[in-house]
Amino acid sequence: MTGRDGGAPLEPLGNTPVVILVRPQMAENIGTTARAMANGGLFHLRLVSPRDGWPQDRAWRTASGADRILEAATVHESVDDAIADLHHVYATCPRPRHIVKTVMTARGGAAELRAATERGLKVGLMFGPERAGLDNEDMARADALIRYPLNPTFMSLNLAQAVMIMAYEWWMAADATPPRTLMTNETHVATKGELENFVSHLVRELDGCGFLRNEQKRPGMVRNLRHFFTRGEVTEQELRTLHGVVRELAHPRRAED
Amino acid sequence: MTGRDGGAPLEPLGNTPVVILVRPQMAENIGTTARAMANGGLFHLRLVSPRDGWPQDRAWRTASGADRILEAATVHESVDDAIADLHHVYATCPRPRHIVKTVMTARGGAAELRAATERGLKVGLMFGPERAGLDNEDMARADALIRYPLNPTFMSLNLAQAVMIMAYEWWMAADATPPRTLMTNETHVATKGELENFVSHLVRELDGCGFLRNEQKRPGMVRNLRHFFTRGEVTEQELRTLHGVVRELAHPRRAED
Repeated sequence: MTGRDGGAPLEPLGNTPVVILVRPQMAENIGTTARAMANGGLFHLRLVSPRDGWPQDRAWRTASGADRILEAATVHESVDDAIADLHHVYATCPRPRHIVKTVMTARGGAAELRAATERGLKVGLMFGPERAGLDNEDMARADALIRYPLNPTFMSLNLAQAVMIMAYEWWMAADATPPRTLMTNETHVATKGELENFVSHLVRELDGCGFLRNEQKRPGMVRNLRHFFTRGEVTEQELRTLHGVVRELAHPRRAED
Repeated sequence: MTGRDGGAPLEPLGNTPVVILVRPQMAENIGTTARAMANGGLFHLRLVSPRDGWPQDRAWRTASGADRILEAATVHESVDDAIADLHHVYATCPRPRHIVKTVMTARGGAAELRAATERGLKVGLMFGPERAGLDNEDMARADALIRYPLNPTFMSLNLAQAVMIMAYEWWMAADATPPRTLMTNETHVATKGELENFVSHLVRELDGCGFLRNEQKRPGMVRNLRHFFTRGEVTEQELRTLHGVVRELAHPRRAED
């Protein structure tokens, strides 16, 4: 699961949301936050009153190479200062109570963040301190709260996991990877002609060995084989292997030797 | 971000995917995996040849209370043994090379897992060892590979993050939370009548103080105020506050005293 893929340097990818950690306690969590951000293509990190000051070596040790995010991070005395130049700010919040506020899912929030950045607006994602979370004054400065729909009987995300889910949804909001594809590498998905060529070969050999000797059942048996071989995509290379399997089963080399 | 929400005990939620950790190295990662699973409503954990044996106290220490998942986990000598009773198995794989295989996104895979469980099939999600990942023999036993679309210049997920994303997508595949909603708690979204009542009050006071004295500009100014007050949802409680704001600004108590 781990490992740098490709050699391109980590750098800001266009206008991306700023991640604002409000009063973070553990420097390790600032490092794992940077790592999570990098996975989702986020780069800009702002720290509001980090408990142990900044910079901290421990952050670099847990960032898994997302050093440039930490190097570019800025420190702010207040939330107001950290968000002054932003147009929209969303705040993650596990259990908002007794307030009137827009609440979004991570996916819905990510879609709106994408739409806002495409309009040229600067946006931010605010995360609270590890234990207490954002306070009421922090939340009153956000345009909307983001609450992850997760198992209500066990909702326990650490800071980096919370950042990871938002970074993942941010990336997915612009991702066009097909949900299902056949990776064929050096070969290609077989054409119907290539498939039919194999099925004909198979049927010919099954006729030869007597497997299809019952003339009444023969059409149905052949159809069933066709149903099986059309259930999923098959590649040209796999058909060549299957041709070989049929050929060798029907005419064993050992017997011919 | 952290904290058990609600008091219901952690238990299997119907027919849910089995998580199979193949040759996991660190017991800590088995614990964080259980925590990630619990967040997404997954319960069934199988361990194939855990390096340091099983059980391990260190797993319980990192599970943040997902103990019942660890207590119910089973140990298997081989992948074949761990998946023998399952109908579909998907394997996560960061960089598959030189193989012909179905590759899915996490979201696409989660949707198919949901569809399969709704048909009554038992399904599994296979994750490889921390450093090496699944080997070629493991992958050949999976129906499809799942690859997360993430930043190709920095893809570095630890085991629990990889499990977290799949558990999150599993949960989301059946989640119906509206992407955006206004949490109103004790109040309600204002009706058009309640809003009009406030706008009328505001305009009356603005007429009174002379702000709308330019008869030619008056209709446009009132329309602009209406545009502002209809931009987002407003609650009945907020309108009451705004009524008070207008009343007090127009007729200050201090001046009346």
